[in-house]
Amino acid sequence: MELYIGLVHHPVYNKRYETIASAVTIFDLHDIARTAVTYNVKRFLVITPLEDQQQLVGRVLDHWVKGFGAQYNGNRKEALERIDLVPSIEEAVESATGKNGTKPLVVATDARETDFRSISFKELRRILAGSDPVLILFGTAWGLHRQVLEQADFVLEPVKGPVQYNHLSVRSAAAIILDRLIGTDHR
Amino acid sequence: MELYIGLVHHPVYNKRYETIASAVTIFDLHDIARTAVTYNVKRFLVITPLEDQQQLVGRVLDHWVKGFGAQYNGNRKEALERIDLVPSIEEAVESATGKNGTKPLVVATDARETDFRSISFKELRRILAGSDPVLILFGTAWGLHRQVLEQADFVLEPVKGPVQYNHLSVRSAAAIILDRLIGTDHR
Repeated sequence: MELYIGLVHHPVYNKRYETIASAVTIFDLHDIARTAVTYNVKRFLVITPLEDQQQLVGRVLDHWVKGFGAQYNGNRKEALERIDLVPSIEEAVESATGKNGTKPLVVATDARETDFRSISFKELRRILAGSDPVLILFGTAWGLHRQVLEQADFVLEPVKGPVQYNHLSVRSAAAIILDRLIGTDHR
Repeated sequence: MELYIGLVHHPVYNKRYETIASAVTIFDLHDIARTAVTYNVKRFLVITPLEDQQQLVGRVLDHWVKGFGAQYNGNRKEALERIDLVPSIEEAVESATGKNGTKPLVVATDARETDFRSISFKELRRILAGSDPVLILFGTAWGLHRQVLEQADFVLEPVKGPVQYNHLSVRSAAAIILDRLIGTDHR
């Protein structure tokens, strides 16, 4: 397995389905980094083109990876060390490209059913069992821009419970998706 | 299925394994409430004996269930309406007791393997398929006090990935556990 995950802050939608660059949520960094380490994700790529948001992420990483936080809580250090900051999805793809030049398979996620290139959890588990790099993209705010879904190699089927409601936080969705793909629960 | 979940702020451990009442984290309310609705949990019981923390939770619920937030984001309203505030685990058990007087089966969760009354995801799924109430307890801070584990009917097996690291946030752990118990992913 050679899995990378990316948390996309641009291009995503706001509540009115306008294209925006969203602000970084600090809880996303902590929660998703801890999930990434638990499921042996190679790198957690935080994707934002906004310089002030890059500086914010940089300050959080400095505190927990090098500063007081690193002594205070070694488990947080181990988690946040898994993060790389990149300005765009293109750079994230570059980061996830193997040393031999193998481009990652890019898999977008969405809370809605999509009409193109859908991939099931089962099929993606099969691909992850191989050694080629895979990059899974998660959207912040109201979700990944349609253009990201269209440019991805696949769009993962949505997480569903027994009811219609599908408004999980990206932190919860990322945890569930990585557990479904990599967790050791035997049903 | 008649499932209740409880988020315990007392008795839990701090970093030095002293018994504390932890502060409420607002992200826990939002994330776990959204997960609760997704997986058709009957009520999400926020358990804290601290009056100032009860007031804090009350203000958050007022905003999203009755105030401006309710118009701004109906999905949040629907999620946070699922929350009841209770002062103790005993009161949570009372809340989860069926109209016919059937006490809930109380299942504690822990990141560590336990030596007593462990229950597997598979077995708990089987129990949840029935109609008797079940109350799953999640710990905040450094986890549920040993006394809670000892008094529960069962302790759920820990969530595991492929590596030893097991420091998921309670928000992520609750999402994964409910998906494993109730999600519709067919492996």
